Amino acid sequence: MDAEEFRRQGHALVDWIATYLDELEQRPVSSTVAPGQVRAQLPPSPPAAAEPFEDVLADLDRVIVPGLTHWQHPSFFAYFPCNSSYPAILGELAAAGLGVNGMLWATSPAATELETLMCDWMLELLDLPDRFRSTGAGGGVIQGTASEATLCAILAARERATEGRSNRSGTSGRLVAYTTGQAHSSIEKGLRVAGIGSDNLRLVAVDDRFAMRPDALAAAVAADREAGLVPFFVAATAGTTSSLAFDPVPAIADVCRTERLWLHVDAAMAGIAALCPEHRWVHAGVVQADSYCTNPHKWMGINFDCDLFYVADRAALLAALSILPEYLRTAAGDAGAVIDYRDWQVPLGRRFRALKVWFTLRADGPEPARAMIRRHVDLATEVAAWVADDARFELAAPPALNLVCLRHVDGDGATDALVAAANASGAALFTRTVLDGRSALRICIGGRTTERRHVEAAWKLLQQLS
Amino acid sequence: MDAEEFRRQGHALVDWIATYLDELEQRPVSSTVAPGQVRAQLPPSPPAAAEPFEDVLADLDRVIVPGLTHWQHPSFFAYFPCNSSYPAILGELAAAGLGVNGMLWATSPAATELETLMCDWMLELLDLPDRFRSTGAGGGVIQGTASEATLCAILAARERATEGRSNRSGTSGRLVAYTTGQAHSSIEKGLRVAGIGSDNLRLVAVDDRFAMRPDALAAAVAADREAGLVPFFVAATAGTTSSLAFDPVPAIADVCRTERLWLHVDAAMAGIAALCPEHRWVHAGVVQADSYCTNPHKWMGINFDCDLFYVADRAALLAALSILPEYLRTAAGDAGAVIDYRDWQVPLGRRFRALKVWFTLRADGPEPARAMIRRHVDLATEVAAWVADDARFELAAPPALNLVCLRHVDGDGATDALVAAANASGAALFTRTVLDGRSALRICIGGRTTERRHVEAAWKLLQQLS
Repeated sequence: MDAEEFRRQGHALVDWIATYLDELEQRPVSSTVAPGQVRAQLPPSPPAAAEPFEDVLADLDRVIVPGLTHWQHPSFFAYFPCNSSYPAILGELAAAGLGVNGMLWATSPAATELETLMCDWMLELLDLPDRFRSTGAGGGVIQGTASEATLCAILAARERATEGRSNRSGTSGRLVAYTTGQAHSSIEKGLRVAGIGSDNLRLVAVDDRFAMRPDALAAAVAADREAGLVPFFVAATAGTTSSLAFDPVPAIADVCRTERLWLHVDAAMAGIAALCPEHRWVHAGVVQADSYCTNPHKWMGINFDCDLFYVADRAALLAALSILPEYLRTAAGDAGAVIDYRDWQVPLGRRFRALKVWFTLRADGPEPARAMIRRHVDLATEVAAWVADDARFELAAPPALNLVCLRHVDGDGATDALVAAANASGAALFTRTVLDGRSALRICIGGRTTERRHVEAAWKLLQQLS
Repeated sequence: MDAEEFRRQGHALVDWIATYLDELEQRPVSSTVAPGQVRAQLPPSPPAAAEPFEDVLADLDRVIVPGLTHWQHPSFFAYFPCNSSYPAILGELAAAGLGVNGMLWATSPAATELETLMCDWMLELLDLPDRFRSTGAGGGVIQGTASEATLCAILAARERATEGRSNRSGTSGRLVAYTTGQAHSSIEKGLRVAGIGSDNLRLVAVDDRFAMRPDALAAAVAADREAGLVPFFVAATAGTTSSLAFDPVPAIADVCRTERLWLHVDAAMAGIAALCPEHRWVHAGVVQADSYCTNPHKWMGINFDCDLFYVADRAALLAALSILPEYLRTAAGDAGAVIDYRDWQVPLGRRFRALKVWFTLRADGPEPARAMIRRHVDLATEVAAWVADDARFELAAPPALNLVCLRHVDGDGATDALVAAANASGAALFTRTVLDGRSALRICIGGRTTERRHVEAAWKLLQQLS
């Protein structure tokens, strides 16, 4: 493909995407393909010669799209949203077209500096504490996912707790971390990756709202110290995956300060709600956190992958992750005058993710995201009222922001059957979870194009199937 | 931005990218901005309202582009290439436009199945061993970077060596890994992340070609066993970063088989050379490896990020990385009928990276990449001859494929000054490294648009500055 053909096909693909998104509502939300069915429609071996790009686009329609679960569909109520907006799509296109690798400041200063600025812009928009601002001792970085941010937080905490011994001689096995059974699986995964292990993660008891009990945390820490172990890390969640429970971060932070534990706050979806002043309670206590993450790719229309990860003390993070072979040395880096983001993450290379943040914040401004969040929260409030009014259902957790968890009063069998039937219909998509040992159906309202009528239709579907 | 505006601005941005790439040769390769200069040209705070997209594009030209190091520039000879092609850019655009998250098979079957198929296609094109094919006990996955692939290899090896104990109770500190001082920094970084630590990495002696000495490996393993340690992992490099040295993988594999060590082969750039039958020697011994990675984003024109990571026994990888909370359970996953790629990587979420591989292999076919690789290798062979003919220079390592390492005969001061002056000129970009304790200048020829005239000009520049 040459430049002229790129222009032609690029225009065609932009139009194809616009049409895909325009007509998405008419498709089933999730694919009904059987395992292996997509692959079976494609040649088992690569082509020996070039094919017309029109054929590729045709196969996109014929084979790929029917095999997708449409995360941008207005009736997607599953997992968390992973919504995108037009300027963010263009930001990804620009990043791909420029094809620069921002591993060091010197390998593209603008990629690093725009990323730092976007972290500071987002800090202002979310009213995050100044200690995370890049102009002080802390700073932000764009990671791919909250899982990666969590792992980096664990590594920085481990570095601080062991004064660098872990990086030199390995992890001792005496380190202990704390979270709740409601926290995201990435916390346990990160501890496994870091060589700390699942057995050294304490699942602190939760209250009847699925939020961590600070007294139980303090007791668990005391018991571990008594046993000669080394408590080092607490992951609090501002909006859990299953039920959007909010751990009481201020009280947890008090325990962490007393016990000198690293406090990481995972606000992957809910942190974005702080774009709206009335929702800034989601960040209560974050001012005392050592690290924090939230995902514009979840609820702000900035394409996956885009996780904002902030630390109050970047020195700990850099000590954990910095390695400097000769071929990566640069004058600016040696002088300490710049940020080299390779030291803020596990991978070396990095895409120019800041472009999609910049494009979105400038081309749309922050208001459309705020309006969307408010619409979602209003709709969820309505849904919670509908659930309360229907004797067949009950709330499985206190509703929060844009999430409602319900169950069928006839028990797990009925709830599981409802999730399965609703999802098989193709008319909407929900996620099943387990709360208090019982099945629940989550309705997470987060699509950029999700309007009241989609939520109403989803509710009617659930009623009809019950 | 609405759909209509997206179409209009999308066309404009496609044209902007085509023009950027067309005119790239006229720009200096690397930016001359001072630290902070890019940021200073942008507002310190986010806009309160939407701005015309034309203004964003104008700032891309005014602020961002002058702050870039142009990795797609034909006179970029630094690091490794990170080259891209037009269909790959469109693949990224399509992935962003679809906005699906392929964390599970069920969350978009086509994303998973196309990725598996692309790994199998690439396996055929690179003539990799059948044990890495997804239809057997092994399989491939697209990671973001070789660093992430290496970490996953370490975790799978650790899982096998400790029979799962590490994931449960942490890393013992008795595990020992082996590579050479020429291997990529990501191996040491991965061992640190995994809680094994730098002290438990042995840098095995190399021969006069900077390749690992298998006898030294065997001796190091024996000494560690004698000391009561647990050797578990060997990272061999097929094409080191500094000098493109090739560790003797067949002999290393013999040691690994005897000693029951996991063998990972890092062929991040050079593995792609196997697209050409005459270069398939780069994969000697890989048939005995437990895991292997190579990066189409380095030398095949498939945009960063795209690392192919293959394992012979996917069970070890899955055991290391699988965690299954209720909200991620699916019928297809529970039945074991599908691949859930979340278990093949550290992050949970994942972009639809397979699209750019598919677009490139179909729209261009494999021949343009083969022709490009042959051109680069021919040019590097010429450069090596020019170095040999100029009394001011000497080769710092045996030339291999597309890399030539040279030094000035007047010593490190002269070599360092040459690198600095050449890079400051903006006419070309090189990387300095250290080989045998002495400075060297690397000329890595890997640009998609790099022709003989660019290499000649670069050589003349080096001569003029010497």
